[in-house]
Amino acid sequence: MSTPKKLILNATEMSTAGHIAFGLWRLADPRQPHYTELRYWTELGQQLERGGFDALFIADALGQLDSYTKSADPAIRTGSQTPLDDPLLVISAIAAVTTALGFGVTVSTTYEQPYLLARKFTTLDHLTGGRIGWNIVTSQLDSAARNLGHERQVPHDERYEIAADFVDAVYKLWEGSWDDDAVVRDPVSGVYADPTKVHAIGHSGKYYRVPSAALSEPSVQRTPVIYQAGSSPRGRAFAAANAEVVFVAGHSTSALRENVRKIKELAKSFGRAEEDIKFVASALVITDETDALAEAKLRKYKLAYSVEGALTHFSAITGIDWSEYDIDAPLSYIETDSNRSILASLTKDAPETEQWTLRRLLAPERGVSYSDSIVGSGTTVADQLELIAAESGVDGFNLSAAVQYESYQDLADYVIPVLRERGRLREHVPGQTLRASLFERTSPLLPSSHPGARYRGAFSGRPSSAPTLL
Amino acid sequence: MSTPKKLILNATEMSTAGHIAFGLWRLADPRQPHYTELRYWTELGQQLERGGFDALFIADALGQLDSYTKSADPAIRTGSQTPLDDPLLVISAIAAVTTALGFGVTVSTTYEQPYLLARKFTTLDHLTGGRIGWNIVTSQLDSAARNLGHERQVPHDERYEIAADFVDAVYKLWEGSWDDDAVVRDPVSGVYADPTKVHAIGHSGKYYRVPSAALSEPSVQRTPVIYQAGSSPRGRAFAAANAEVVFVAGHSTSALRENVRKIKELAKSFGRAEEDIKFVASALVITDETDALAEAKLRKYKLAYSVEGALTHFSAITGIDWSEYDIDAPLSYIETDSNRSILASLTKDAPETEQWTLRRLLAPERGVSYSDSIVGSGTTVADQLELIAAESGVDGFNLSAAVQYESYQDLADYVIPVLRERGRLREHVPGQTLRASLFERTSPLLPSSHPGARYRGAFSGRPSSAPTLL
Repeated sequence: MSTPKKLILNATEMSTAGHIAFGLWRLADPRQPHYTELRYWTELGQQLERGGFDALFIADALGQLDSYTKSADPAIRTGSQTPLDDPLLVISAIAAVTTALGFGVTVSTTYEQPYLLARKFTTLDHLTGGRIGWNIVTSQLDSAARNLGHERQVPHDERYEIAADFVDAVYKLWEGSWDDDAVVRDPVSGVYADPTKVHAIGHSGKYYRVPSAALSEPSVQRTPVIYQAGSSPRGRAFAAANAEVVFVAGHSTSALRENVRKIKELAKSFGRAEEDIKFVASALVITDETDALAEAKLRKYKLAYSVEGALTHFSAITGIDWSEYDIDAPLSYIETDSNRSILASLTKDAPETEQWTLRRLLAPERGVSYSDSIVGSGTTVADQLELIAAESGVDGFNLSAAVQYESYQDLADYVIPVLRERGRLREHVPGQTLRASLFERTSPLLPSSHPGARYRGAFSGRPSSAPTLL
Repeated sequence: MSTPKKLILNATEMSTAGHIAFGLWRLADPRQPHYTELRYWTELGQQLERGGFDALFIADALGQLDSYTKSADPAIRTGSQTPLDDPLLVISAIAAVTTALGFGVTVSTTYEQPYLLARKFTTLDHLTGGRIGWNIVTSQLDSAARNLGHERQVPHDERYEIAADFVDAVYKLWEGSWDDDAVVRDPVSGVYADPTKVHAIGHSGKYYRVPSAALSEPSVQRTPVIYQAGSSPRGRAFAAANAEVVFVAGHSTSALRENVRKIKELAKSFGRAEEDIKFVASALVITDETDALAEAKLRKYKLAYSVEGALTHFSAITGIDWSEYDIDAPLSYIETDSNRSILASLTKDAPETEQWTLRRLLAPERGVSYSDSIVGSGTTVADQLELIAAESGVDGFNLSAAVQYESYQDLADYVIPVLRERGRLREHVPGQTLRASLFERTSPLLPSSHPGARYRGAFSGRPSSAPTLL
């Protein structure tokens, strides 16, 4: 009998009151700390590591959700991704109290300079000992654009053009600017690093010019593990070209399978090896000792579920004020200048016989988020996760909490032991890097088929600095 | 007898090989972790808290030092502020292992958006429980400008104009956008925050437009403690208007006193209360059990001191390639378009009978940095620090390490006990905020004479969001 494929299990959070199970912050244990407290994150990290999770993933956005009713009021009232803290700043604290848990953090390429983003991730790779990953997003919120010096949102496809130039610059900084043996730290000669082994990258793209070498010395992974969640055609191409872990969407296993297939095909056309890309689907799990207890828990959760919160979020990510629409009208694909991928995937992926409406999409009957929930005992949930993985080809799951802290404890208590017994979990070794763990390899570095890898040694012979502009 | 004035004691670091005592990384204990390791920072934080320091201050720059010989080679070779990691990302880890230590971090206003910087500091104020301070700089390195999308450095005075607009926007976000009682977190009604108590700030300045309310809910200090180190006329005015803690420069106590006087006078003319501003001078202390042992330590340190590293740094901050100059020629003030304040203060402050040359300025005879060192036993050093404070009117010191880790231990072992016995140290209470501790008050908030305080309640009645552009 062959060893079953290991499943990736990420816990998905956001530094906010309510991430995706809108309104369910109402059910949080009042003895537990809030997301604004350091202890919330250090205890969560320890809980996840004990529980057997591979990584903690922290999502982000750069604006309030103010599309629904054209006001931030609903988001503020329901605590739906508003207020919101910075996800990067808490990572080192969690790293300090864990030894093997990986981290994925969302950072947008739209309001950041490659030279400084490169330093941020190298710093976090240093501090975590190679446990950091970067979820590349291009920012879709108009409210972010308005507060960050843009007249309006950059058009969707151009955001991906900017992102392509951006990642090209950071790959050069991470992979090509400091040779492996550049840092010598020799107290006798007083040489900290050998300048002949540090190279100015001379990046001059359409959007970014980065003449110099990286500001930081290289970290163990050099490039952080690259995550991406593209579901629009342009986003899918970006993911196929760059992502090592793709977050795939799809409201059925066949839709998931189709998305996995498309991205794999594209990736192959870009010269990437199939085994160098993992696919991860989202799931909200509600579990307990028995199926009946899990169903009872779902019923309790539904009482706290905020449809207003869901409408607030759905309006923000689609860029449409749904308060102006009939919630019983059939949903259809609306072409706009922004990333309307969720709406598109919903209507395109749905079996032809089903007709989606807003009411149906956001109704608590479907669960406590507008992604379908998986509800049942540990065995039931493990069966379902294995089935989805087998039928769709995904390599694992982003599990989000219905109720902060409680849901991950439930997963650790009921689901993960079953998956472990079935040989589905990775063994975590203190000090391991995220990339080596995810791909079950020994090297912490990008595989040779990744576009970043072509910059290794690419700038040899170039001087350490470029004091004048390109 | 009156109680003696308490002295502020900050430890000054940078996430790099060599901050200001160039080349002395060669003497670091090889058993100690490096700055790239998390353990370096958590152990340092614990050491400082045990030792009685008020705060850890982490400096930053956004480029390599590549002015000297017009190349980054000398900086890379000597490890002089190059390579360099991000200072913000390590704060939460240190906060996790300390309870009262304050933090100050340098962040430039030149390459950042106010809306996102506000969220960063609110997040850190949340995670540290009100222990964070912000050192406002405007970035002086041409190499940073080149790598961050600017054709060249923004002119010095315009950088301060931009900074003035920037801080105005963040004060509005921090002080005026969320009322004290906005966040209710009521599980029964499902109201996380009351939208009628959250207000769009509608900031529309010359450089920045920030229409919305802050993305984060308020933290205990709201505005972080504001640090600034302006010594040019424009920088001094900015400090007088905004800083709660001013880093003053001066190569004699009379020069220090004159700078303190000037800034106090300016601050008064801006309507600020004298007791709302603290002045802190820099000092590099080399100490041991006896004066003779401290002198012996200095001699050992001098062997490792890198004049090349000092020249590298001095060239970068003056924007002048000093490899082209005669190091024995008299130094005179050179007017340029950037911040040449150190050179200016050196030549202007020096007694008329003394003639400074580059050789004299950077010679190891003066110490192991081009700031004068204070060398001696704990009693000798404490006497000197008290004398400088009495004569100049400064409220405390930024103490930088000659040798990482070792120097702070020496201070904790020899100097701090003497100062404590003399009643010169603050008592630190777990959970205290940085502002309350520094000003020996109970309120963690900005005092009413600070320009940020005028935005309290200033936007009452305004809606929670501004969905359209101003």
